[in-house]
Amino acid sequence: MSVGIGIAGAGTVGGTLVRRLIEDHDAVEARTGLDLVVRRVAVRDASRSRDGIPGDLITGDVMDLVSDPSVDLVVEVMGGLDPAGALVLAALEAGKPVVTANKELVAARARELVSAAAASGVPLLFEAAVGGGIPIIRPLSETLAGEQVERVLGIVNGTTNFMLTEMSEHGAAYDEALAEAQRLGYAEPDPTADVSGADAAAKAAILAGLAFGTWVSPDRVHTEGIEAITATDIRFAAQLGFVIRLLAVAESTPDGVSARVHPAMLPTGHPLAAVRGPTNAIFIQGPSVGELLFSGPGAGGEPTATAVLGDVIDAARELLSKSQVAPSIRFAPADVVDFGEVPTRWCLRLEVADQPGVLARIAAAFGDAGVSIKSVWQEGRGDGATVLLVTHTGPEGHQRVAAAALRALDVVFEVASVIRVVGAAE
Amino acid sequence: MSVGIGIAGAGTVGGTLVRRLIEDHDAVEARTGLDLVVRRVAVRDASRSRDGIPGDLITGDVMDLVSDPSVDLVVEVMGGLDPAGALVLAALEAGKPVVTANKELVAARARELVSAAAASGVPLLFEAAVGGGIPIIRPLSETLAGEQVERVLGIVNGTTNFMLTEMSEHGAAYDEALAEAQRLGYAEPDPTADVSGADAAAKAAILAGLAFGTWVSPDRVHTEGIEAITATDIRFAAQLGFVIRLLAVAESTPDGVSARVHPAMLPTGHPLAAVRGPTNAIFIQGPSVGELLFSGPGAGGEPTATAVLGDVIDAARELLSKSQVAPSIRFAPADVVDFGEVPTRWCLRLEVADQPGVLARIAAAFGDAGVSIKSVWQEGRGDGATVLLVTHTGPEGHQRVAAAALRALDVVFEVASVIRVVGAAE
Repeated sequence: MSVGIGIAGAGTVGGTLVRRLIEDHDAVEARTGLDLVVRRVAVRDASRSRDGIPGDLITGDVMDLVSDPSVDLVVEVMGGLDPAGALVLAALEAGKPVVTANKELVAARARELVSAAAASGVPLLFEAAVGGGIPIIRPLSETLAGEQVERVLGIVNGTTNFMLTEMSEHGAAYDEALAEAQRLGYAEPDPTADVSGADAAAKAAILAGLAFGTWVSPDRVHTEGIEAITATDIRFAAQLGFVIRLLAVAESTPDGVSARVHPAMLPTGHPLAAVRGPTNAIFIQGPSVGELLFSGPGAGGEPTATAVLGDVIDAARELLSKSQVAPSIRFAPADVVDFGEVPTRWCLRLEVADQPGVLARIAAAFGDAGVSIKSVWQEGRGDGATVLLVTHTGPEGHQRVAAAALRALDVVFEVASVIRVVGAAE
Repeated sequence: MSVGIGIAGAGTVGGTLVRRLIEDHDAVEARTGLDLVVRRVAVRDASRSRDGIPGDLITGDVMDLVSDPSVDLVVEVMGGLDPAGALVLAALEAGKPVVTANKELVAARARELVSAAAASGVPLLFEAAVGGGIPIIRPLSETLAGEQVERVLGIVNGTTNFMLTEMSEHGAAYDEALAEAQRLGYAEPDPTADVSGADAAAKAAILAGLAFGTWVSPDRVHTEGIEAITATDIRFAAQLGFVIRLLAVAESTPDGVSARVHPAMLPTGHPLAAVRGPTNAIFIQGPSVGELLFSGPGAGGEPTATAVLGDVIDAARELLSKSQVAPSIRFAPADVVDFGEVPTRWCLRLEVADQPGVLARIAAAFGDAGVSIKSVWQEGRGDGATVLLVTHTGPEGHQRVAAAALRALDVVFEVASVIRVVGAAE
């Protein structure tokens, strides 16, 4: 029995998916027993012909995928909130399983969409929304369903990881690294969504939702990008035994769940420090399972289409078994903690006056804020000195109070950079 | 609605699982909505009391798990082929979902058990059978269902990886490394199943079955252990830029599927070369997905029980949805290729006479066997010389012919070791 597939979006991922569903049809059928047939492909501009997509399949109206009775299963790979959200919701309400790769949509409307899927008893799958071709959604929501996950650390944006690797290994400046990423197709002409951390923030919200079984609104994800990271930061980090990575962090704290994105200093021996270039990786910690690492290609048409195709096969199997699907994702209410209350550690680079008593005054600013200092390293120059300072763990809010106090000191010319330390021994 | 769980086996994994099902009952229910209740625990000696297991749950007859109507779902963590096999088959035939961590059973009887599960429309899950707490079964059988996987390389035995790490990092001899592994509880008093490669062979058969959708009998897995590896091998490997790891290899070749276990020389830059101590890791290569790496704790009660618990939750969800389960694993017939026909590369260490013309005669032996040599490194000693030789890829059978010819040469005193090279550039 065949399963009719409707696909919204024929960009890099959608185009690859259509081609593979057509070219690999017999191989997939031999392996899975499923006869997957592309019935409709919805695109923005239906008048333009597309390589490898038969013209009679193309429509300009995404809602055709819902109304066309020959479409049994909807794949949404168009991206964005609209009209993707309306399409996914309508398909689920019509009882059609949905596979999406849309991190922005899943992050923003997961709770509502998961409910709609549960109400209709059909699957809503989104393995490709985080980590491209890396299986991470199923492991988190199924294999680790019995684990009280403590922390998920992810390198989930290949563009920024490529840039930071270039800066670290070739001493490239930020602008040079960005230009190289654009030249190689890792960065868009407008790189804002990547370098600002917004892309990673959507993924952090999804990871937190799955790890802790609660929906975290992307609005509640504290987000900092890599725009302020300089070659100097990376050089000093190396001196302290750290590499800088943009991390998505989902963490269970005594006060609630925290999801955030920021550049982080990782000890060079940390498993995520070895993740180079556009590769993505997700590191999971829990009391029973210890430490798990998943790594692989985080983007690109082929890997992402592979993850989407895996979901399509899974959803098609469920469809043919004619069963009501028991949802594997549940969102229970939980507190999302303000970032100011989350325990963090800071590494600060200060430009200071080179005179007696400076370190004592800096130390006093931290002491007054209730933050203790782990290590200080000072390098004199003619007219002043550079101080690198690593704190112990304390509430983010206290670290900020200390930093503000430093800025008010006349002997501190500049707080040149502030980067949080993750994964280091106290 | 509650789901009654029957557990066969109360060893390290079974005992941990029972304790967690009881202690974490409310947390699991809050997260998943499932009321999981332990109804029966079958043990070999029912007269002995067990920590944390209420005495009235204990039975000495595993078949009670099938006949007891309060048991909805059977967990088999007793290990071995008998009576585990009879229990699993009877439970599936009685329409009860089965979760097992038994690699030996799954490897030996996967085809028959998967058929029985499909016939009854109930799940048979075995995430814990390979890689302990690392999610690998679901990613291979579900997420990558649409990928034509080319190769799976696994470090799937923590005991031998710990020993090889000790030998490599501390210069330990084989016996010292084994004693240390036993002292730390990583190796059994009788370490045969680990060091002979038998444990890894069962896992290689399972990985090949899932990666290529065909059942590979463990009898067809070419298996070599680490018993012959010496500190000298490891020292010379390091000199050539390799580390030695015991690998499970599942590979698709033009002539069929190959599954094997043997020590391998991995380039130090290979992702699996960084896997140290008792950690397990699985590396997957495919044309679309590129390279994926999964790593984590490969054994131990807590991680393994976590994987079993994830399967129990999944199976319980299916049970409550009262659906016929669409099996995600299918075994199609496929050729298993003889190891002699599989392309391999060899690294040989030879003790030879230090006289003119020796290298020419060695090279001729390879040339006659149709194997070409990639690199040769010779170190003279007073009375002879050590030659390290790395071949290009050629059929395993040809490499063996060359090695046999070397042994017949009067100038070759000894073929001191033969270790295959994996993951290096040609």
